[in-house]
Amino acid sequence: MTSCSPSLSKIINTSQSISSDLLNNKTPKNLYEPLNYILSNKGKQIRVIFALLSYDMFGGTNSENLKEIVLAIEALHNFTLIHDDVMDNANLRRGKDTINKKWSNNQAILSGDVLLIQSYQHLLSSKCINLAVQEEFNKTAVQICEGQQLDLDFQLKHEIESTEYFKMIELKTAALIKFSISVPLYINTANNLLLNNNQPIFSNSSFHTEENKDLMNSIGLLLGKLFQIQDDYLDLYGKESELGKTIGGDILENKKTFLYIEACRQSTLQQRKDLIKTYHSVNKNKINFIQSIYNELNIKDYTFNIINKLHGELMHLISDIKVPPHKKDNFIEFIEIILKRNF
Amino acid sequence: MTSCSPSLSKIINTSQSISSDLLNNKTPKNLYEPLNYILSNKGKQIRVIFALLSYDMFGGTNSENLKEIVLAIEALHNFTLIHDDVMDNANLRRGKDTINKKWSNNQAILSGDVLLIQSYQHLLSSKCINLAVQEEFNKTAVQICEGQQLDLDFQLKHEIESTEYFKMIELKTAALIKFSISVPLYINTANNLLLNNNQPIFSNSSFHTEENKDLMNSIGLLLGKLFQIQDDYLDLYGKESELGKTIGGDILENKKTFLYIEACRQSTLQQRKDLIKTYHSVNKNKINFIQSIYNELNIKDYTFNIINKLHGELMHLISDIKVPPHKKDNFIEFIEIILKRNF
Repeated sequence: MTSCSPSLSKIINTSQSISSDLLNNKTPKNLYEPLNYILSNKGKQIRVIFALLSYDMFGGTNSENLKEIVLAIEALHNFTLIHDDVMDNANLRRGKDTINKKWSNNQAILSGDVLLIQSYQHLLSSKCINLAVQEEFNKTAVQICEGQQLDLDFQLKHEIESTEYFKMIELKTAALIKFSISVPLYINTANNLLLNNNQPIFSNSSFHTEENKDLMNSIGLLLGKLFQIQDDYLDLYGKESELGKTIGGDILENKKTFLYIEACRQSTLQQRKDLIKTYHSVNKNKINFIQSIYNELNIKDYTFNIINKLHGELMHLISDIKVPPHKKDNFIEFIEIILKRNF
Repeated sequence: MTSCSPSLSKIINTSQSISSDLLNNKTPKNLYEPLNYILSNKGKQIRVIFALLSYDMFGGTNSENLKEIVLAIEALHNFTLIHDDVMDNANLRRGKDTINKKWSNNQAILSGDVLLIQSYQHLLSSKCINLAVQEEFNKTAVQICEGQQLDLDFQLKHEIESTEYFKMIELKTAALIKFSISVPLYINTANNLLLNNNQPIFSNSSFHTEENKDLMNSIGLLLGKLFQIQDDYLDLYGKESELGKTIGGDILENKKTFLYIEACRQSTLQQRKDLIKTYHSVNKNKINFIQSIYNELNIKDYTFNIINKLHGELMHLISDIKVPPHKKDNFIEFIEIILKRNF
């Protein structure tokens, strides 16, 4: 992570230290060792950091209160990665062998299963959950699976409408970001199952309004959409050194990206024929060919402008959140860091 | 199911009708269609029936109250079958193609995942759950995965201690039976999350004692052990027509059964060498050869006697349950039907 303010840095450090609690020494060793392997190689932990930032923004008193919920989020996220890697037959994750590569598909299925169940154990261990939090968590988990299904379905289709693409992103990627940034507002908006013993969970609950909750849900969806389009953009137009993966990987894997979908939509009949044919071929030179069609259609600039437009909408929504403005600083700074990482 | 008393028959019918509520018309169709396919081909529903019988035994007023918990149990059970079939590369389940055979491994993984999440949705929809029920459910789900891990581990080992075997059975098979028959006692032993509106969940809660709960837990474990040893026995000594599968299938698949483990334990050094070598070969005649070693060691009678011994222990435990004796009739009748199906 690039340099950031001390207060944001503190939250990022908290996220690192909390996430270490996902590791365990349980038996059978063969079941839990692959999980320790994956979980010790931490990712960017965007969801965890967002949950902590949102909790802080809405008057959270102590990040320790959110710990088990945050662990549930991280466990759920990693469960989806483990099973997605099996389904994609992926060999690498965060620069290391996937579980399916290092062990076997069966091991990745079973270790993933137990991690999903553990996410529920963490959620249930939280002193500040209630029925609303549990229902939102379940809904989110279902949505992730539904999004993954659409993604699998897309592999068999050559043309995707952009509404279908956005539906997939909303479910597969945005749903969990939405849950992460809105969960603090669910904690306080229904009866708590158990109250926190020694300190209130929030110093001030006057900002826990339905209006703010709706805003956070919209912001979550927009963030998911924005990050995904950015990922699609960077896969082709980013710097390999910063990306940590091969440029054009999505094209090689025939992934239905925002760039591809827009190119199909904006192309002439002949361009579209060429695009679809080459995109689904195993032509070694396909990245250059696809890029030349994208260039003809000016897809790079179009996408860059869309990202800027969504960024503007996002900042507008954030400005509407009813909390003291300085409480938004870390949240905004973190978004800027993620969005600026490559432009 | 063979003929049974009208009161047991009524509970079995209730189980059939409740389980139909697992089917749904949600989208994406490709995600849910495989689940409807598997769930409409109902199995024996032993766990569902046991839960309803236990609820009735302990003064349950209306099986409708247990509906969502029972659906959670059935969803969890079917999730494990779907993923086990992927791991075993199994083609048939209840006489029909498995999801992995009819669709693909990826589809079975993803549809199984969403079914596990749905089991939590059902649990949470129940008006009579509490923290204790949720914790027991989570614990059970983890145990099933741990048992499956031991089972996978056994595939790579030639000799298993009987204590390891029983540990595996306890986790993989018995844990969910234990949960099913003891869950009615957890409902009433902690604060309810939400109370049932119009009628009490139990007509009488004087039998909801820690003593009865411990007994039901022990009975659940013993039932799981007994059913598994019976399954192992019948795989070789049952009637093919009643079994619905090939005689000796476990031997063909090198499964570490009670028969095999006892044969290893009771054999001479030379017999054990022959047994292990043949058991792990692809010899076409291996069923006959293994059976001849079992005959030399009298494994059939030994196993039959063990089953009878465990059956006696089970009846003893049931006699200790403190409820009016006639309340146990259906529970006992159902156990006898399952155990008698093939001897």
